Amino acid sequence: MTSSEKTGADAVQAAKTPSLLGELSAEFAGTMILILFGCGVVAQVNTTADGSAGSYDSIAWSWGIGVMLGVYVAGRISGAHINPAVTIAFAVYDGFPWRKVAPFVVAQTLGAIVAALIVRVTYADLIRAVDPDLTETQGIFSTFPGDGVSISTAFLDQVVGTAILVFVIMALVHPRNKGPMANMAPFMIGIIVVGIGMAWGSNAGYAINPARDFGPRLVSWITGYESAWVTGTGTPYWWLPIVAPIIGAVVGGGLFKLLIDRFIPAEDAPQEVGRV
Amino acid sequence: MTSSEKTGADAVQAAKTPSLLGELSAEFAGTMILILFGCGVVAQVNTTADGSAGSYDSIAWSWGIGVMLGVYVAGRISGAHINPAVTIAFAVYDGFPWRKVAPFVVAQTLGAIVAALIVRVTYADLIRAVDPDLTETQGIFSTFPGDGVSISTAFLDQVVGTAILVFVIMALVHPRNKGPMANMAPFMIGIIVVGIGMAWGSNAGYAINPARDFGPRLVSWITGYESAWVTGTGTPYWWLPIVAPIIGAVVGGGLFKLLIDRFIPAEDAPQEVGRV
Amino acid sequence: MTSSEKTGADAVQAAKTPSLLGELSAEFAGTMILILFGCGVVAQVNTTADGSAGSYDSIAWSWGIGVMLGVYVAGRISGAHINPAVTIAFAVYDGFPWRKVAPFVVAQTLGAIVAALIVRVTYADLIRAVDPDLTETQGIFSTFPGDGVSISTAFLDQVVGTAILVFVIMALVHPRNKGPMANMAPFMIGIIVVGIGMAWGSNAGYAINPARDFGPRLVSWITGYESAWVTGTGTPYWWLPIVAPIIGAVVGGGLFKLLIDRFIPAEDAPQEVGRV
Amino acid sequence: MTSSEKTGADAVQAAKTPSLLGELSAEFAGTMILILFGCGVVAQVNTTADGSAGSYDSIAWSWGIGVMLGVYVAGRISGAHINPAVTIAFAVYDGFPWRKVAPFVVAQTLGAIVAALIVRVTYADLIRAVDPDLTETQGIFSTFPGDGVSISTAFLDQVVGTAILVFVIMALVHPRNKGPMANMAPFMIGIIVVGIGMAWGSNAGYAINPARDFGPRLVSWITGYESAWVTGTGTPYWWLPIVAPIIGAVVGGGLFKLLIDRFIPAEDAPQEVGRV
Repeated sequence: MTSSEKTGADAVQAAKTPSLLGELSAEFAGTMILILFGCGVVAQVNTTADGSAGSYDSIAWSWGIGVMLGVYVAGRISGAHINPAVTIAFAVYDGFPWRKVAPFVVAQTLGAIVAALIVRVTYADLIRAVDPDLTETQGIFSTFPGDGVSISTAFLDQVVGTAILVFVIMALVHPRNKGPMANMAPFMIGIIVVGIGMAWGSNAGYAINPARDFGPRLVSWITGYESAWVTGTGTPYWWLPIVAPIIGAVVGGGLFKLLIDRFIPAEDAPQEVGRV
Repeated sequence: MTSSEKTGADAVQAAKTPSLLGELSAEFAGTMILILFGCGVVAQVNTTADGSAGSYDSIAWSWGIGVMLGVYVAGRISGAHINPAVTIAFAVYDGFPWRKVAPFVVAQTLGAIVAALIVRVTYADLIRAVDPDLTETQGIFSTFPGDGVSISTAFLDQVVGTAILVFVIMALVHPRNKGPMANMAPFMIGIIVVGIGMAWGSNAGYAINPARDFGPRLVSWITGYESAWVTGTGTPYWWLPIVAPIIGAVVGGGLFKLLIDRFIPAEDAPQEVGRV
Repeated sequence: MTSSEKTGADAVQAAKTPSLLGELSAEFAGTMILILFGCGVVAQVNTTADGSAGSYDSIAWSWGIGVMLGVYVAGRISGAHINPAVTIAFAVYDGFPWRKVAPFVVAQTLGAIVAALIVRVTYADLIRAVDPDLTETQGIFSTFPGDGVSISTAFLDQVVGTAILVFVIMALVHPRNKGPMANMAPFMIGIIVVGIGMAWGSNAGYAINPARDFGPRLVSWITGYESAWVTGTGTPYWWLPIVAPIIGAVVGGGLFKLLIDRFIPAEDAPQEVGRV
Repeated sequence: MTSSEKTGADAVQAAKTPSLLGELSAEFAGTMILILFGCGVVAQVNTTADGSAGSYDSIAWSWGIGVMLGVYVAGRISGAHINPAVTIAFAVYDGFPWRKVAPFVVAQTLGAIVAALIVRVTYADLIRAVDPDLTETQGIFSTFPGDGVSISTAFLDQVVGTAILVFVIMALVHPRNKGPMANMAPFMIGIIVVGIGMAWGSNAGYAINPARDFGPRLVSWITGYESAWVTGTGTPYWWLPIVAPIIGAVVGGGLFKLLIDRFIPAEDAPQEVGRV
């Protein structure tokens, strides 16, 4: 469903919007689906030796698939942010009501928590087999800087990664821009995350979503991962995948406004022949 | 692809609604296509050393592709359940007639059996080369718990995996929700299965479909796999990928009703501009 | 563009069809694109050690991408068979004119020959580096049975693989069936070939297309591959990927007629709620 | 994704056609997105040992995803060439104004430069860890001939690769041809690049885009890569991925005109039922 197909009707009509409860339920469920595929694939790959149940490529694909399906699940009801950084960017730039930001963030984080619990319990046997002391498989649940990557680089990486995410999401869903139609935008939003996993994943594990990182990190700590909040060298780290993605989302949204939004022609403007 | 002479005849003969025979034929054919790609890829990967004909990633993709194509094959005639657990979920939650459940399940299982026979015969040379005693390649046909995974964990895993499957399928095909249009839903349903293979495949081999597991298991037993019905330690296992997926489907459908369905706005309700 | 959108108009109007020359040019170009991606990827993977430029998975994807793009290139003009077995199946079952079959097959084979020549010349340096005697890289151009696979199994495999291809193509493009709309059918037809490469590729290299196999095989022989026409043990083989796919295409088309076609409801028949 | 307050303002301010400044901004941003995913994935894979953060397959996918997303970002405003060779081909064959060619090329190159700088800075830690002398990771930024590939073969390869790219792009976006609808053409254009990476990447690294190669190469040189402009044996090479793709684009566009364009039937010409 493209915006060009619905703007007219929308402007006139304003009834039967989903309740806030409905929106929160959708954000909860959409983020849960995201994390079920995301933490699930890392659990599968990290508890199986020799790549016999997947590889880094399947990690990139499955996180992206989680985004696709989470957005399809929640899209009609809540708009499917399923990411606090995205919610904040839409509040800053697109009039999403600030009063809904905190409830959305809570719902997203709860969805991530429940999903991470399901992963934790279902993969308990396999985790125990490869990591009985719960010191090697933290990466199933939360992100950390790669070997040799400084905290400041990890911070920069999360700003860049989330800026890319929000910039492209805004391009795909902008009502006058040319996103995919036939409601294939959720598919393509998932493809963004596949690409970010492939190209922006090795510095800091591409959290690019505070709920995705904090919720499962909390679950891992509660269920026995003692060093869940710090890096391998003991530096507190849990705040970084919260703060940096939010900054990145604001940067990315701002760049979209600057470089693209103000130049998009009116909906009925002609397109030149030969254009994509 | 040309079929120039068909329109006239079609207009005359086509029935208003498909007969039950037609529906069963479609379920048979759709499940057959699913298993031809599914058991086929495992046969290819498991009978070729050193990954030179595929990897776990190709297993995940090919099962998903089998679902996509099976759903396209059967969708117009029978709705393309191609999975007894899905059939039961639609009966429980969406008014699919209970009297059709048993015939659908039989047709699905027969389709799986025929496809597994084709795989068994066509891959006979390659199977004989790597597993002359038929003790190592049972996984081509049916699922088993991963190393170190208990029966109860495998059961939980199959409930979770099938619940995810049915939850997201219901979101994608719900008439008022925002699934893919342009009949791309079968593509996206296959993508669910790609993701489940990547994220929920190592505990119990992601049967998530009783016909997919029982049919090929039967074929393997008939054609010489003597321990087809039990785990490596001799515990009866064949019932688990039948029972657990059915429970998971009911759970997943129920959660969809609870978390999403009742909050979806009316079809003519406006969507805020810019929403995905 | 779905058939349901165009049948009405089509029935009335009959002007401005492409000339036979145009159709042959489109079949030539479409098959050329197919082979440029198909033989190209095998050349890349087979001339690079240790998987550093791709894997079996990239072979499966790139052949499928070649099909997608070849069908998009030729679709509007010729219907994009780009495969003699498909042409023959449409002649047998869907009224494609028999007088056009031979010209189509010649155009397809010429497209495959030109593409294979381009691959041969562009990859000449890399082929020389790994196979100076031209005895190890025949697989870039043509198919052979896998190790331990008998000729009769390879024959069966090619019948099965091509039957699957034609069965599903017919399901995707049937005017009353539910194929992808928005002209995404070429994409999905390519996905069939990705799946066949993953699941039906190790017995006999999934030729499933006489032009794809014969054209490049001829090019390899002309350019110095002395044993292009026989298996590693000297048995003539070149005829098999011609004959078996044609038989498979007829089998697959017939099964589609039997199991699906006659049960597809009329275009204006309702679909039950909850159906995919 | 919600942007509820935007419609009113948009209706007033949006111009009928984008300004040249807008087009250049879009080309800048689209090419930046392309390179962020493209150079990013090579940085990730090349600075991580043992494939634990991706493989050649992820390189092929991520470059293609960069193209998809870059085209969606810029498509509505500038037509999303994001490649000087494509710009020149549209000028030669489709009436794109020659006076805009130089500004477009500059904008594309600047976008590539900024993106490469972001990659250079964000991956600085990881690059330093594996290549402190900056002699091993030039491939993150620019292309070179493969081992044993002569300059003339690399030149031919770049002509062929870019010809394929432009040939298929023209087929996908031609107004009377059958490209994907629902604005899925950008997705499919990215798929072309996935396929070219898989099938035409080992001779010369598939630059197929002068801005993609020159911009990042310049960045690498400025930031310490001393042999950025030459091959491993000291031969000047930087000119080749500029000149050869331009020639290839003209060849590919010409072949499209010759083989396809002149045979495409009128837009209102019927399509035979059942054709893809």
